[in-house]
Amino acid sequence: MWPQPHRKLPAPSTKPAWGLTAKGAKTVKLKDMGEFALIQHLTRNMRAYDSTVVLGIGDDAAAIRIAERKYVLLTCDMLVDGSHFWRERITPGQLGHKALAVSLSDIAAMGGIPRYVLISAGWPANLELEYAEGIYQGMAGLAAAHGVFVIGGDTVSTPQLILDVTVMGEMEEKPVTRSGAKIGHVFAVTGSIGASAAGLALLHKGICAGSYFPETMRQALLKSHLLPQPRVKEGGILLKTGRPSAMIDISDGLASEVHHICEGSGVGAEIYLSRLPVHEDVKRAGDLLGKDYLNWALHGGEDYELLVTLSEDDVFAVQKELRQLSVDFSIIGKVVDQKNGVKLFLDEGKAVNLAKKGYDHFSHTPD
Amino acid sequence: MWPQPHRKLPAPSTKPAWGLTAKGAKTVKLKDMGEFALIQHLTRNMRAYDSTVVLGIGDDAAAIRIAERKYVLLTCDMLVDGSHFWRERITPGQLGHKALAVSLSDIAAMGGIPRYVLISAGWPANLELEYAEGIYQGMAGLAAAHGVFVIGGDTVSTPQLILDVTVMGEMEEKPVTRSGAKIGHVFAVTGSIGASAAGLALLHKGICAGSYFPETMRQALLKSHLLPQPRVKEGGILLKTGRPSAMIDISDGLASEVHHICEGSGVGAEIYLSRLPVHEDVKRAGDLLGKDYLNWALHGGEDYELLVTLSEDDVFAVQKELRQLSVDFSIIGKVVDQKNGVKLFLDEGKAVNLAKKGYDHFSHTPD
Repeated sequence: MWPQPHRKLPAPSTKPAWGLTAKGAKTVKLKDMGEFALIQHLTRNMRAYDSTVVLGIGDDAAAIRIAERKYVLLTCDMLVDGSHFWRERITPGQLGHKALAVSLSDIAAMGGIPRYVLISAGWPANLELEYAEGIYQGMAGLAAAHGVFVIGGDTVSTPQLILDVTVMGEMEEKPVTRSGAKIGHVFAVTGSIGASAAGLALLHKGICAGSYFPETMRQALLKSHLLPQPRVKEGGILLKTGRPSAMIDISDGLASEVHHICEGSGVGAEIYLSRLPVHEDVKRAGDLLGKDYLNWALHGGEDYELLVTLSEDDVFAVQKELRQLSVDFSIIGKVVDQKNGVKLFLDEGKAVNLAKKGYDHFSHTPD
Repeated sequence: MWPQPHRKLPAPSTKPAWGLTAKGAKTVKLKDMGEFALIQHLTRNMRAYDSTVVLGIGDDAAAIRIAERKYVLLTCDMLVDGSHFWRERITPGQLGHKALAVSLSDIAAMGGIPRYVLISAGWPANLELEYAEGIYQGMAGLAAAHGVFVIGGDTVSTPQLILDVTVMGEMEEKPVTRSGAKIGHVFAVTGSIGASAAGLALLHKGICAGSYFPETMRQALLKSHLLPQPRVKEGGILLKTGRPSAMIDISDGLASEVHHICEGSGVGAEIYLSRLPVHEDVKRAGDLLGKDYLNWALHGGEDYELLVTLSEDDVFAVQKELRQLSVDFSIIGKVVDQKNGVKLFLDEGKAVNLAKKGYDHFSHTPD
């Protein structure tokens, strides 16, 4: 689903004005723009809605008020071979699972219940049927686990493998957006962060079984990246127990999501480095690969955990509920006035600006 | 949206059983299968639904019963450069229009009202921003004409241009499917058929302005192919006035759609060649290009007209309503017992089997 556009367009003085190709001006190519700026620009005239559209472009999912106490949520995510995954480094079952998981996570981030799925697939003509079957088996497994039904889709032929998964969800209450964070509330996050990026680093380095890397740890980190578990149940518990003022799923990296909430809500943030829930495996993997694990935790993305703002009083009740699912729920900071900015407090008490950079599939490659 | 799978899978005796790769057996590639067989095969274990799913995989759109007298329709269609369109032969505005039109047409074919749109786009990095803007302008124009809102989507980078448009529609009554045709009812079709395929033939032949081809006619045929008008209003009128027993939009060609209705409904058909509404321009274009215009009309596809079965008594009332929109509504045949097969009655009264072949983007190229 389209994330909230947050980058300013380049100033017209340095580049030709968007939409205009002044004679002699250099033509603007899409690669010159980031994903967010492009979305912002292309949809700038499409944001006038009627009263049924509770949420349009700009959150994890769109929301429609369809009847008394009935909201419909819609989200879609497109995954492309060579950009969002590498066919030779993921099993078809994992790929199918992940393609569905990222959209289920968007529904979870609104507090909704995913219900129905459309699968659009672009297949290379030379792909083996067995591989396509594996993808559908991976999707079917995750769909069954969440009680969602595949009700349609489309199938075309494309040079590279493409999966676009649309999920429709439902909820009775108004969805939780990224725009409601209240000063005085705390930031809290489900599970732990950084493991997916560590797993991706293992894939990039081509670390195989039998290497110097401890196998159990390698498997666990790869699983975090290749088989993310959308926090659907947790989203429902948060909605009921935690009364969150804002919620978002961590697809682009924790820092980026904190910024999304702050920009959407018009608030600032204090995030405490010492409170970030990072698994020991992630720290050790950082040591072994000579990488900064904090970079993974803050900017790696694809953790698909839920980042929430809620009152500190509600945190305990949520923790109690989530403990029954063996899921941690950690306070990592607090919501402050916008004028204080978005700060990261280091272990020594020193504060730095929290860099916004997340993972942008459109214009960047991961570190 | 996935069409109804209608081809039988190849017998296991001639090819390895699907899902099994027996040692030494030739691996099955996707190109060895047709689009319909592939969908049928991949989704074979995904068709167990709960009672909210009124229509799952297999019609123009899926349908969910979401509340008392409230159905939600969902459909998506993926268009790929080089397969569904050729970037050098369509303006970006036309492309945006068409990408949305095909999905609006799916909603119209159920008798529904399209309401909300998600746009997933895969952009080549080197594409000019102006081109992308043109696509969105084309979509925005058609969306505004039908009062639908673009509420979300996704944006990724891909080698070739890809648009996947999901449309959500609504209706108060139960949707009209392709499966309800009643013996004794007639087949009728809105507008005329074959013009889109004639326009495609002009594109393929590269017939430009200033050629021997009459320019007004050339423009009209190209418009039929490049700027199809989804029959949304007409679908609503048909639902209210015509009480259709079955309805489908003509995306794959009239013959193919007649077969879809017959297979879905367990009936046969008599189609009368002399009754097919084919515009004079289409016949003349056939003469000029040395092509059989009937092939365009029967098997060309992308007309996006509505093919309906209804009682002959209701036809007049529908014609009266549609005349106010300057839209023809022609009886082209009748629904008969399944044992009579699907026949095309030629002008001399001789009947032949109506070949099912339609346009299959996945495994064929058009003639």
